[in-house]
Amino acid sequence: MTETWANASGEAGAVSGEAGAGDVRMATVGGLDLHLDLSGHRVRLGLETALRDAIRIGRLGVGTRLPSSRVLAADLGLARNTVAEVYSQLVAEGWLTARTGSGTTVAERRAAADPDVNDAAHPETAAPRYDLRAGVPDLSAFPRRAWLATARRVLATAPDRLLDYPDPRGLPQLREVLAGYLARARGVVTDPGHIVICAGFAHGLAVTCRALHARGAGTLAVESYGHQAHRDIALAQGLRLRPLPVDGSGADLGEAGGADAVLLTPAHQFPLGVTLHPRRRREAARWGGVVIEDDYDGEFRYDRQPVGALQALAPDRVVYAGTASKSLAPSLRLGWLVVPPRLLDAVAAQLAAGPSALDQLTLAEGIASGGYDRQVRRARLAYRRRRDRLVAALGRQHRHVTGIAAGLHAVLELPGTGTERLVITRAAGHGLALTGLESYRADGAGPVIAGDRAGLVIGYARPPEHAYTTALARLCAVVSSPASITDGNHYQPLA
Amino acid sequence: MTETWANASGEAGAVSGEAGAGDVRMATVGGLDLHLDLSGHRVRLGLETALRDAIRIGRLGVGTRLPSSRVLAADLGLARNTVAEVYSQLVAEGWLTARTGSGTTVAERRAAADPDVNDAAHPETAAPRYDLRAGVPDLSAFPRRAWLATARRVLATAPDRLLDYPDPRGLPQLREVLAGYLARARGVVTDPGHIVICAGFAHGLAVTCRALHARGAGTLAVESYGHQAHRDIALAQGLRLRPLPVDGSGADLGEAGGADAVLLTPAHQFPLGVTLHPRRRREAARWGGVVIEDDYDGEFRYDRQPVGALQALAPDRVVYAGTASKSLAPSLRLGWLVVPPRLLDAVAAQLAAGPSALDQLTLAEGIASGGYDRQVRRARLAYRRRRDRLVAALGRQHRHVTGIAAGLHAVLELPGTGTERLVITRAAGHGLALTGLESYRADGAGPVIAGDRAGLVIGYARPPEHAYTTALARLCAVVSSPASITDGNHYQPLA
Repeated sequence: MTETWANASGEAGAVSGEAGAGDVRMATVGGLDLHLDLSGHRVRLGLETALRDAIRIGRLGVGTRLPSSRVLAADLGLARNTVAEVYSQLVAEGWLTARTGSGTTVAERRAAADPDVNDAAHPETAAPRYDLRAGVPDLSAFPRRAWLATARRVLATAPDRLLDYPDPRGLPQLREVLAGYLARARGVVTDPGHIVICAGFAHGLAVTCRALHARGAGTLAVESYGHQAHRDIALAQGLRLRPLPVDGSGADLGEAGGADAVLLTPAHQFPLGVTLHPRRRREAARWGGVVIEDDYDGEFRYDRQPVGALQALAPDRVVYAGTASKSLAPSLRLGWLVVPPRLLDAVAAQLAAGPSALDQLTLAEGIASGGYDRQVRRARLAYRRRRDRLVAALGRQHRHVTGIAAGLHAVLELPGTGTERLVITRAAGHGLALTGLESYRADGAGPVIAGDRAGLVIGYARPPEHAYTTALARLCAVVSSPASITDGNHYQPLA
Repeated sequence: MTETWANASGEAGAVSGEAGAGDVRMATVGGLDLHLDLSGHRVRLGLETALRDAIRIGRLGVGTRLPSSRVLAADLGLARNTVAEVYSQLVAEGWLTARTGSGTTVAERRAAADPDVNDAAHPETAAPRYDLRAGVPDLSAFPRRAWLATARRVLATAPDRLLDYPDPRGLPQLREVLAGYLARARGVVTDPGHIVICAGFAHGLAVTCRALHARGAGTLAVESYGHQAHRDIALAQGLRLRPLPVDGSGADLGEAGGADAVLLTPAHQFPLGVTLHPRRRREAARWGGVVIEDDYDGEFRYDRQPVGALQALAPDRVVYAGTASKSLAPSLRLGWLVVPPRLLDAVAAQLAAGPSALDQLTLAEGIASGGYDRQVRRARLAYRRRRDRLVAALGRQHRHVTGIAAGLHAVLELPGTGTERLVITRAAGHGLALTGLESYRADGAGPVIAGDRAGLVIGYARPPEHAYTTALARLCAVVSSPASITDGNHYQPLA
């Protein structure tokens, strides 16, 4: 990593030691402050650790010359031998190089020295070659240049006060444009005062659950298929769960019993893909408790008329949750809640966290300029094409996917959980990552769908464009094998 | 706003008292359970605090009707007069409304009750010309260009995988460099596996409190002077508060009684400015419960040797919390926790939110390159100069500030709360924003500091450099007026 934050020379600096009030001394090496814990028997260990860490994280760059052991020992008030031993140890470990005439310098780093960071920096070694897991968009489609250009404009023009603690409910500028966007794009009924910006859906869900719990709620009804991570969040906030049956009309709130609230994916059930039937929508709108509407992919509707947010039918009882994780990128951790008036204070009291104000303003500018809408339209077109290719390719194998009217995934039903596991294992052998319905099923859900339904949840958004053709071909090869899969089309499709 | 949550109708709820295991009784008000600490002479204070807290955090919503004083007194086994006095006090403070015929209800929140949000929503109208409030750094010193340059490099080089959902505990790259940084800069004993990245201190505190509560903790001891927002966070996570006396040696844990955890600012008590005495540090390290160490300005130590983190003395029981809010900017919402092994899973289970992965990587590169350290050193130098100018300017008025060995604020003691309010009002008339010790005092703290201490908390970091001279001059003018302030220097300074 090269030094560009400001101006570091990387040359050997003077070393000065000060006697600590207790056991901590400070030395300056190569222009950098090092705090050394030199108490008791830890003298040697403290110096060794401080130097090793400084090298590991690049604070002492390759080639930096260290003071002689005599100078450093004198400045720190240590025995010269102690410093010399530390230098020897670090030379033996490969962190330092000792050459006659040029003293002790920081060595070239070995690639293997840092497994964690190494792994993250070289994801290709850890990630599957073709990833058809659901829940993540095409990350290569994130508009890096546009985002950066907007961020630069924001940083160049934002007054200093925007660097202060932001309003915990979110920047007024973002809430203002979101109110307009949600009204026109999703039919949400709201105003900026009832929008709360959160750090992604998981945060919004946690905050909502916690607010409900603080106001006396005990049980959250959930769809019997969904993300385990979301169920874990509700549990961690003190709520009990009640799984609801999901059929071809969506979740059945008739089974919610005395639950205080329900978490639904009305526009496009995750993962089964069905749309909540208009009758069920009306029932949900009339239901007595609070509805948390997870509108995770509401922007991505292909064939039918847009299905507006359920929130519009009951804005006094629906907490609407949206996210930039699918339209832009999950790593931004940007989401929003639309909160009924009577819950607003309770939700706000639980916020604690929020996204960077600079990111909030960048998104606000993106929405206001129309760039966000264009990005959504581009993505919708690209994902629709991918969906059509998926449907066509599997159709040639006489296989039919369901839940395809919207979103970034489809379901290929299979005759049973055994087959599901077999296909997923076979796929992994072909470098193809897939998940099955089983992994989304709530504990204790019971046989909520007739026929012990099983299947693949195929996320077609995730592979970069150039890899999608191969991913599809491998998927077809895996599911067409008569040795592993019996025909699943006798089963009643969900949608 | 009306109170209509679920089965709580907003009408008078049944009130039932239960004898607590010790001194805690539970009453049901408006359908919600309230836990009241009614031990000994603190009966009235306990009831008052419990009701105020329940309203503040939204547990008792606007319009909720409280039981009559007669009914609540009977159910709690208290004298009716005690309950009536508490109601009167809360009506006087604006939390409750009493109307003939409709009983006592929770009042509409006044705009003034929520200065933070209000202020944040309209900063341009609310911002004073000269802001000497504590808790915020010099925002004009944020290294915009360096931050943007690093962010650009991150976005240009990061693999797509970094746009995916980040590790909820934080990016490995950031945790790696933070482990090294915290070790050398603050003497923290840790490794990347025990670091958790959070969205600022408030988030870290909420997560920690929630994890402690989930593991059975009931009471958090807090310093009797501190941020009300932090106390509100603990309350919102279900903890009760026990204020600790703070004297010239810092907080006295001897009064923590059966508290399960304590929130401390050991390096530089906020707002009083004292450093926790070595004896008290040792006591805190030996204390039986969990210590949350708020190291909000640990990087900014001026005169004395660095005071290392308390965490180093008891890494198995101290949750260390640091932040980039003072060293860079609060708007970034970047902070970190160092968590003892036995609490790690519980804390991780409560995370839900986290900062943008791109911001995390930008900070990691800043630390690794040494740019972060240089920024801290630049800021430390600038703040130290400001502090010296403050001390000198007030010294010419024969006034002496305390708590100045570190941090971004100092305390100018005043003879009483009346004077404190008068000076703050006068200052506002001069376009000068100041806060007093009174606004940081915990409800029910009692006379924890001998002499009914009062004073100004002067944040000298906040004004941009060009405005500091004028801000100082106005401060001197305000505090030097013989008409408003009698000499406060007869009072024993805290540090």
